[in-house]
Amino acid sequence: MAMKITIFLFDGITALDAIGPYESLARLPNSTIEFVGKVKGAVRTGDGFLALHADADISSVRETDILVVPGGHRRGLAATIPDLEVQDWIRRIDAGSRWTTSVCTGSLILGSAGLLAGRRASTHWRAKVALAQFGIEYSADRVTIDGKYMTSAGVSAGLDMGLKLCAELAGRDVAEAIQLSMQYDPQPPFDAGDPATAATADRVNLIENVLRQ
Amino acid sequence: MAMKITIFLFDGITALDAIGPYESLARLPNSTIEFVGKVKGAVRTGDGFLALHADADISSVRETDILVVPGGHRRGLAATIPDLEVQDWIRRIDAGSRWTTSVCTGSLILGSAGLLAGRRASTHWRAKVALAQFGIEYSADRVTIDGKYMTSAGVSAGLDMGLKLCAELAGRDVAEAIQLSMQYDPQPPFDAGDPATAATADRVNLIENVLRQ
Repeated sequence: MAMKITIFLFDGITALDAIGPYESLARLPNSTIEFVGKVKGAVRTGDGFLALHADADISSVRETDILVVPGGHRRGLAATIPDLEVQDWIRRIDAGSRWTTSVCTGSLILGSAGLLAGRRASTHWRAKVALAQFGIEYSADRVTIDGKYMTSAGVSAGLDMGLKLCAELAGRDVAEAIQLSMQYDPQPPFDAGDPATAATADRVNLIENVLRQ
Repeated sequence: MAMKITIFLFDGITALDAIGPYESLARLPNSTIEFVGKVKGAVRTGDGFLALHADADISSVRETDILVVPGGHRRGLAATIPDLEVQDWIRRIDAGSRWTTSVCTGSLILGSAGLLAGRRASTHWRAKVALAQFGIEYSADRVTIDGKYMTSAGVSAGLDMGLKLCAELAGRDVAEAIQLSMQYDPQPPFDAGDPATAATADRVNLIENVLRQ
């Protein structure tokens, strides 16, 4: 069965949020993926280093099977979350979707459209307070499924979500073959990615004061 | 110390090969990242679903501190590997680089420029025979360091390589904070990413016959 997958792009996006799930979903047999922005054309990441191309604008996309909403840097979110046109589009697309999904702070964009109220959702560990402001219960799980909503934790969690979605859509055998084709046998050099064990004050201070967000 | 990082883009690229290391390197303090193509402008992934933007062309980039060469789909590689202009540019950039790196079949592009001959390198598990044709010894490690060359296994291995490179460039504390900011605590849904344990005939047949490459 042919499936249409739509990935939303916006200025200030975090590229891996979008590319993580895209890379597995793009390998599904009989799927097409479309990158969609508020307007067609180049969209820049929050750090300014990379432009991704939106091949369609939201007014031209009226339905899809799978919606993927990535997160972004603070300024990008600050412009996108209150955007009523984006909220309307997300609600319309969600009305006909089989799965509505998010990576990282993409859950806040879904939240702003009212979609996750009363549900459990994952998000970046730094966004759990923001999530509560939309009436959404923070889940510390890497990927959370609540109804047809699949949400994932920060940035890199979209890879895990993508493969889980592949299994839902095409079965475990196909998902495992896709995982092999992506050689996804992760070996992080440090044990520092889980905020429950890694979020020492020193590391958080480094993030706040030295690193780019 | 300011660092210049250059990521090579070409038509037929695998997006995650480039975005995996980009996402950690972009968080380094005092770094700039430039995406460079043979010509400036949009470059499309091998599946055709996504365009990434090259902000510069290779003739305008004469030196860099860190070169990252991603891999790609077969047709993209078939056009890029024999390209003498690309080979010349890679050799020139490598002559002044601090690190020359690759993800997935990017090692074949480095190999075509003669850079890895006689060295050990990682690549996608399906490309180990091709690697040998350039006189390069295949390493099954996820990330391999040989001199100033850092190479990684297929597609998703660029995330692990990026963090390792961050540690080399800015120290372990910074790399760990970057890992936390990316929430890189991978939880693959299946144990299917390692070809040494997962490459059953069934899965490889699925990749050959059903999935997009």
